[in-house]
Amino acid sequence: MRTQKPPDIVIRRLVLYLRTLENLETTDKEEVISSYALSHLAGVSATQLRKDLAWFGEFGKQGVGYNIETLREEIREALNLDGNYPTGLIGAGGLGMALARYSIRRYRDESAYPFQLVAMFDNDPAKVGGTIDGVPIFDVRELAEKIQTLGLQIVIISVPAAAAQDIANACVAAGIRAMLSFAPVKLTVPAGVRVHYADLGLDLGHLVYYL
Amino acid sequence: MRTQKPPDIVIRRLVLYLRTLENLETTDKEEVISSYALSHLAGVSATQLRKDLAWFGEFGKQGVGYNIETLREEIREALNLDGNYPTGLIGAGGLGMALARYSIRRYRDESAYPFQLVAMFDNDPAKVGGTIDGVPIFDVRELAEKIQTLGLQIVIISVPAAAAQDIANACVAAGIRAMLSFAPVKLTVPAGVRVHYADLGLDLGHLVYYL
Repeated sequence: MRTQKPPDIVIRRLVLYLRTLENLETTDKEEVISSYALSHLAGVSATQLRKDLAWFGEFGKQGVGYNIETLREEIREALNLDGNYPTGLIGAGGLGMALARYSIRRYRDESAYPFQLVAMFDNDPAKVGGTIDGVPIFDVRELAEKIQTLGLQIVIISVPAAAAQDIANACVAAGIRAMLSFAPVKLTVPAGVRVHYADLGLDLGHLVYYL
Repeated sequence: MRTQKPPDIVIRRLVLYLRTLENLETTDKEEVISSYALSHLAGVSATQLRKDLAWFGEFGKQGVGYNIETLREEIREALNLDGNYPTGLIGAGGLGMALARYSIRRYRDESAYPFQLVAMFDNDPAKVGGTIDGVPIFDVRELAEKIQTLGLQIVIISVPAAAAQDIANACVAAGIRAMLSFAPVKLTVPAGVRVHYADLGLDLGHLVYYL
């Protein structure tokens, strides 16, 4: 294994390979897959796939292909997905609620993605104290405390743009180092904290370039 | 301008610069911004920003910085965002509805992102014929016809994983070349058709690597 770190784009593709392998298992019982077949399904070249995997060691045998289950486990380990990441969602508005429901239903019984949504936060007294599919909604003023007592490691931010930076600051102060933001605004965070943006505007803007 | 095409990652960053410039305007009336200040706000180096912009020609003057309004217009043009892109959303489930509401409210009166959500589609008779904030929900069996009569250029797919490939095929057959999919499955499309994935699982999987 190399000591250099793989570029971020390689990480992104690894997640995609894992997704592809997981989809495979549900429809296909074959135990081995060739790098050609896997790369084709994932939408990259076989050379790209082999190069990406080479960042993480020796997977598969020349001419034999990859054992699906083994490769799945190895990629999951490379991505740190064999851990457990209690996740909080901040902003129980329409989008937040829908994301929460989607996330809870999809991941509740699935060992593949270890993101358990364990807490939601809002500032609306009508929502605070309630639950969504069993997940409690706390007052956003309890954010720092709950991040610590519940051991939250990831937060999903779905508050209005104007509130997002304050929320991000509070999360960082409470020790959060990974955030997924749906707020349509660039967040400023210290080095060592990672923000990904899940932003319809950015996605659509990006797509249109290719039309 | 170079004749080579910029890498996709440059396009992604350009969308981010545009977003940063748009956020600026609402809080800040200064007309000029230095490449250092803009790159800092966007979270890249000044060198990176200048290199990215250089793909599209000469923006700004050495030592003077960028005129915010001009740079905004130039980036928008470079990204084809000065067009008009009627958009459809397929799958009026919980997530689809929330996305639709979010998208409609956010973009209705905003000239910056020209994605008008003009149609939704579902297979639930209880939903077909209804509207969400004025946008009609059509029967998914009318998909091909409506793509053509309404001139849809982009579709957002928020149907269950098992249905997504069939929907994508129908869209491609009807002439769609840009899709944003929320379904947790890799879609196979012909060359020339672009799919972006807005997938909570991929985003979270990617984040966790850095924890």
